[in-house]
Amino acid sequence: MTEMMTKEDVTAMILSAKKTTGITWEEIADKISMSPVWTHSAAMGMNAFPPDKAALMVKVMGLPQEAESALSESPTKIWEQAVPTDPCIYRFYEIVGVYGPTLKALIQEKFGDGIMSAIDFDMTVTRVENLKGDRVKVEMSGKYLGYNSW
Amino acid sequence: MTEMMTKEDVTAMILSAKKTTGITWEEIADKISMSPVWTHSAAMGMNAFPPDKAALMVKVMGLPQEAESALSESPTKIWEQAVPTDPCIYRFYEIVGVYGPTLKALIQEKFGDGIMSAIDFDMTVTRVENLKGDRVKVEMSGKYLGYNSW
Amino acid sequence: MTEMMTKEDVTAMILSAKKTTGITWEEIADKISMSPVWTHSAAMGMNAFPPDKAALMVKVMGLPQEAESALSESPTKIWEQAVPTDPCIYRFYEIVGVYGPTLKALIQEKFGDGIMSAIDFDMTVTRVENLKGDRVKVEMSGKYLGYNSW
Amino acid sequence: MTEMMTKEDVTAMILSAKKTTGITWEEIADKISMSPVWTHSAAMGMNAFPPDKAALMVKVMGLPQEAESALSESPTKIWEQAVPTDPCIYRFYEIVGVYGPTLKALIQEKFGDGIMSAIDFDMTVTRVENLKGDRVKVEMSGKYLGYNSW
Amino acid sequence: MTEMMTKEDVTAMILSAKKTTGITWEEIADKISMSPVWTHSAAMGMNAFPPDKAALMVKVMGLPQEAESALSESPTKIWEQAVPTDPCIYRFYEIVGVYGPTLKALIQEKFGDGIMSAIDFDMTVTRVENLKGDRVKVEMSGKYLGYNSW
Amino acid sequence: MTEMMTKEDVTAMILSAKKTTGITWEEIADKISMSPVWTHSAAMGMNAFPPDKAALMVKVMGLPQEAESALSESPTKIWEQAVPTDPCIYRFYEIVGVYGPTLKALIQEKFGDGIMSAIDFDMTVTRVENLKGDRVKVEMSGKYLGYNSW
Amino acid sequence: MTEMMTKEDVTAMILSAKKTTGITWEEIADKISMSPVWTHSAAMGMNAFPPDKAALMVKVMGLPQEAESALSESPTKIWEQAVPTDPCIYRFYEIVGVYGPTLKALIQEKFGDGIMSAIDFDMTVTRVENLKGDRVKVEMSGKYLGYNSW
Amino acid sequence: MTEMMTKEDVTAMILSAKKTTGITWEEIADKISMSPVWTHSAAMGMNAFPPDKAALMVKVMGLPQEAESALSESPTKIWEQAVPTDPCIYRFYEIVGVYGPTLKALIQEKFGDGIMSAIDFDMTVTRVENLKGDRVKVEMSGKYLGYNSW
Amino acid sequence: MTEMMTKEDVTAMILSAKKTTGITWEEIADKISMSPVWTHSAAMGMNAFPPDKAALMVKVMGLPQEAESALSESPTKIWEQAVPTDPCIYRFYEIVGVYGPTLKALIQEKFGDGIMSAIDFDMTVTRVENLKGDRVKVEMSGKYLGYNSW
Amino acid sequence: MTEMMTKEDVTAMILSAKKTTGITWEEIADKISMSPVWTHSAAMGMNAFPPDKAALMVKVMGLPQEAESALSESPTKIWEQAVPTDPCIYRFYEIVGVYGPTLKALIQEKFGDGIMSAIDFDMTVTRVENLKGDRVKVEMSGKYLGYNSW
Repeated sequence: MTEMMTKEDVTAMILSAKKTTGITWEEIADKISMSPVWTHSAAMGMNAFPPDKAALMVKVMGLPQEAESALSESPTKIWEQAVPTDPCIYRFYEIVGVYGPTLKALIQEKFGDGIMSAIDFDMTVTRVENLKGDRVKVEMSGKYLGYNSW
Repeated sequence: MTEMMTKEDVTAMILSAKKTTGITWEEIADKISMSPVWTHSAAMGMNAFPPDKAALMVKVMGLPQEAESALSESPTKIWEQAVPTDPCIYRFYEIVGVYGPTLKALIQEKFGDGIMSAIDFDMTVTRVENLKGDRVKVEMSGKYLGYNSW
Repeated sequence: MTEMMTKEDVTAMILSAKKTTGITWEEIADKISMSPVWTHSAAMGMNAFPPDKAALMVKVMGLPQEAESALSESPTKIWEQAVPTDPCIYRFYEIVGVYGPTLKALIQEKFGDGIMSAIDFDMTVTRVENLKGDRVKVEMSGKYLGYNSW
Repeated sequence: MTEMMTKEDVTAMILSAKKTTGITWEEIADKISMSPVWTHSAAMGMNAFPPDKAALMVKVMGLPQEAESALSESPTKIWEQAVPTDPCIYRFYEIVGVYGPTLKALIQEKFGDGIMSAIDFDMTVTRVENLKGDRVKVEMSGKYLGYNSW
Repeated sequence: MTEMMTKEDVTAMILSAKKTTGITWEEIADKISMSPVWTHSAAMGMNAFPPDKAALMVKVMGLPQEAESALSESPTKIWEQAVPTDPCIYRFYEIVGVYGPTLKALIQEKFGDGIMSAIDFDMTVTRVENLKGDRVKVEMSGKYLGYNSW
Repeated sequence: MTEMMTKEDVTAMILSAKKTTGITWEEIADKISMSPVWTHSAAMGMNAFPPDKAALMVKVMGLPQEAESALSESPTKIWEQAVPTDPCIYRFYEIVGVYGPTLKALIQEKFGDGIMSAIDFDMTVTRVENLKGDRVKVEMSGKYLGYNSW
Repeated sequence: MTEMMTKEDVTAMILSAKKTTGITWEEIADKISMSPVWTHSAAMGMNAFPPDKAALMVKVMGLPQEAESALSESPTKIWEQAVPTDPCIYRFYEIVGVYGPTLKALIQEKFGDGIMSAIDFDMTVTRVENLKGDRVKVEMSGKYLGYNSW
Repeated sequence: MTEMMTKEDVTAMILSAKKTTGITWEEIADKISMSPVWTHSAAMGMNAFPPDKAALMVKVMGLPQEAESALSESPTKIWEQAVPTDPCIYRFYEIVGVYGPTLKALIQEKFGDGIMSAIDFDMTVTRVENLKGDRVKVEMSGKYLGYNSW
Repeated sequence: MTEMMTKEDVTAMILSAKKTTGITWEEIADKISMSPVWTHSAAMGMNAFPPDKAALMVKVMGLPQEAESALSESPTKIWEQAVPTDPCIYRFYEIVGVYGPTLKALIQEKFGDGIMSAIDFDMTVTRVENLKGDRVKVEMSGKYLGYNSW
Repeated sequence: MTEMMTKEDVTAMILSAKKTTGITWEEIADKISMSPVWTHSAAMGMNAFPPDKAALMVKVMGLPQEAESALSESPTKIWEQAVPTDPCIYRFYEIVGVYGPTLKALIQEKFGDGIMSAIDFDMTVTRVENLKGDRVKVEMSGKYLGYNSW
């Protein structure tokens, strides 16, 4: 009985192929006609590739055929650090800590009692030129979900 | 020796005045010519009002004069829950957990080794109409800060 | 400036009135035409009463008029114990620990890659007679939400 | 002295066989005349197969003969994350956090001082069609156990 | 609206009356015809008095009449310290840490796959004379509950 | 320099031999004239075998000669989970949480200010037949140790 | 029903009287013929005064008569910080972290498999003059307790 | 490029040589003219051997020549368990919890505001004969360090 | 028996007087001839004022006479958040996380196996003008303490 | 597909080469014209080498050519211990705990509401001779970042 190829195996292969070829996440995303945020996240094993995108990804990155099914499996999303230590990721955690109650208050003011979905959700990252120093722009959009009363 | 008015005291007064008058965060923000996100956050005691905005806020919300200096003090930003339980705030925490490494990878691809500042930072929340259900749009912008080597 | 009535204050009044009158959660729920699960949860301050239900609740429980607006405010849902100690609540935590991966696997098998919403959600608790000892039946229903790819 | 086959080994074999053959959990459950929830959970090593079901499982999944005894061993039920991160599992954790006190209050109202057993327990997951989006239905049933006084 | 008497209030009254009168837990237990373990635990608010025992307790300890209903309410069992620090309680925690897997293995050997109930449960503490130093004897008895397969 | 045989290695050998031969813990305990609780615990590496018992254990279980010294080494008692997740072990943790203060109060009432030793300690597990369902009986006995004042 | 005097109340009185009179812990200990370590610890409510010492302490510190019974009650020993932050206490925690396995190894080498009791235990702190800087000397002595096999 | 020999590797070699030869920690300490506490701790990799002692240790224990430099490297002192579970080590943790504030108070009374150094520090463990049971004596001595004001 | 004035009480008085008078920490430090870092820290109750500095502080800030003895008491240094959330403090925590092993390696390279004392320690904060944005300069100096071998 | 060389691999090679050649961090830093703090940190994989420094480092330490790209990759900065145990690193953590609020207060007094950047940041460690014992001097400098209001 042979070992199955896991999502971790495929992630390692993608990173290795990316390094060898020098292709960027933007370019990979472009070639599979998806956004860079989603493409990176799915390549890291945090999202599942739809079958056609899995097939495309295998071709674009030159992966072995068995990788296709691993890419389209539903991932179990696990992060080890409740409070992330990497400064780049921590700053986003800090924003949630400082502005979480504000996001909640404004969502309620504009929509009613409910939340922004993190499932029916998309996000982009862009570089905005600025004379005082370029800025990172992050745009998130999620479906509003109102609490049910029953 | 009389007790000093704290930022918590002033937050309670603002919430009470807001409830009595029915004014919204959007309207308060408008009257002090600041954004709703920043206005709510500062009213909650998570940001400091510049002196002129503190004076304006006191007038707009009908606060006692002593509130002005409390509003302009530098806050100590504390959140009690390392992992927030409120579903509306948790979803943002979840996004950092799931997409944190992706945000980091794309910032590095577009800018180099560094982070998005959470200090030289601004954010907006808007409601986007959508036939399948309106969406919450959150836009963050922070200055890119590159790591120093020395 | 008078103190605002909080959701905690109203919860205490409801519990006191319930004790004095001997009314059950089933009966309260019945009088406001909502389910017992939702009614208890909203009375505990974990859900917001729609305005008409808030008005009804004030009447049914003989609460002061100011309670109405507290009842209809959006709550911040906080639980202190990451792992609950009360045996009755712990058993449900244990079920999530033991059967969580199973719930995930079957949701994916039946629906695809996604989750059961805890927002567009309802639940009932019933007593089922059984010769070997009556059983507690808990039925949850939440909207399926499929992960977005973009 | 040869290595014993562990429950983890057998779980890996089952997942591999399932992937190769394309059989679903529903179908496996059907073939061994057990429910899908219990079958998946036992296949993951979180429940013990009764001897006859272990024998059947070996046959249905084409496992080596030694797997039979591993399948029928009593498992030690361990979950690593006190608060699960996977969104699909977290939502159930959130339900326990938000509705735990409600479940307790209604069990006490209907039964007295006691709990729903998580041992003498069963559960089903079904897909319910709905025009506004299909729904996940989870039904749990556990024996009521009243606290002893002595 | 008067404040309700809580289980904590009644516990404080019982401790005060116990100190004033010098009565022991054994004697209190005797007078209400219950065991000392259960009596202490219920007096601390960790178990509910059946109505007749609540009435008796009020009489025995000279409590105000309103205490009766507080005594018979279902408690929410909360302990603050996941790992208890008091040496007398810690030693029992240590026993669970050291001998937990052994208790599990022997229960399974003698009964099958299941647990000892902590709900249908009773316990005694006795002093056993011994020339090398008297010994504490703790006897627990709980109903065996076998895991369900379905 | 050859690898030393560790207590973990010997535990694995014992479990393997036990499975192959079908011998029970009761029977092993019998053959080495020790109690089942102690025998299991020492076989798991949580207690040290006295030299003669180590020699006997090697013979009874057919272990290699080098196992003898590993069996008689003093173990470092480590448990990974501050709060155990396995339901069978958790129930004992729950008993300590709910009844810990009661055990302490009754030990003090019967002995004075002190504790039950978890070192000069023994325990048994027995099955008690009962028409309403057989019961697990756990008996612990530990030497009373009074606090020193000096 | 009057409030009982707690151990915390009495500790506050002792500290206040100590400050007013300028008496040292050494002197208090001397006057009640106990050691300074034990006296301070019992005055802080971490140990129980034997009845005669409680009576003496009341006289020495000029406490109200009711303090006597509080002083002789068995304390529940609680410390809030699993890892102490005060540098003076932390250094002892650090010593346990660094030298814990060494203490264990040497106790086993000199005594066999067992522990040093923290109950039948005493300790002194002395100042040792030294030309390179005076030194703190801490001496602990606890009864050796050997593990039981049964 | 060959693998460097780590402190862990050398610790394993020392333990193996110690077991084979039956030498005790006291004897090893004697042969290198250091104390048993320090010798064990350094052998475990929690302290660095001065070069001459490293050379001696290699000779005494018959270690390979490369071990010498590993023995004299500065260790990174890591302990995994914030609260140790092994009963022998836990008792020392408990002593710090119960008597930490007492140690602090007496150090301040005898020396002023400062601490006992855990760096300029030494410790011994001895066996003290006693008719009621032999006792473990632990003596610590650390330089007093007074807080700086500047 | 009157309540003693605590260090917290005095800190509140100092902050209030500082606000009323508009004096800065630099100016306060100047008036008592100590550094600003130490002065703020001692005013916050994290260091003890030497008697003469306590007397001076009382005069400078217009505190009641009883404050003097509270200012010169040895504090118990407690911080609640193992990981600080305030961004200004967190950045220093992050520096310890990222550069801790580097600080250790360079101290060892320059001094040998030991540490920088946090007790015989001083620190300054200065503003350094810079065309690209002024910089915060933090200088720490602590006595080197070499590990003892014995 | 060959395994990529990771930052961990290269760190191990650097440490090995450093040990073999006896070169110090100061000397390595000198040869690549960077500071010792930054050089050590980057060699440990906590900072990225600019391409030219990576090339130089490969030459100076005699690393294989593939190491160059690993050295210049952006690291993910992870530290496992929220509270570090090594005494040398812990002392810096303690300084942040004790003096964190002071650093914040003085930065605000000198600059306004903001922080010291940990990204646009540099640090040095020097040995300062002193008759009472040499001292470790740590100098940090980070750009002041003022909070944005918008």
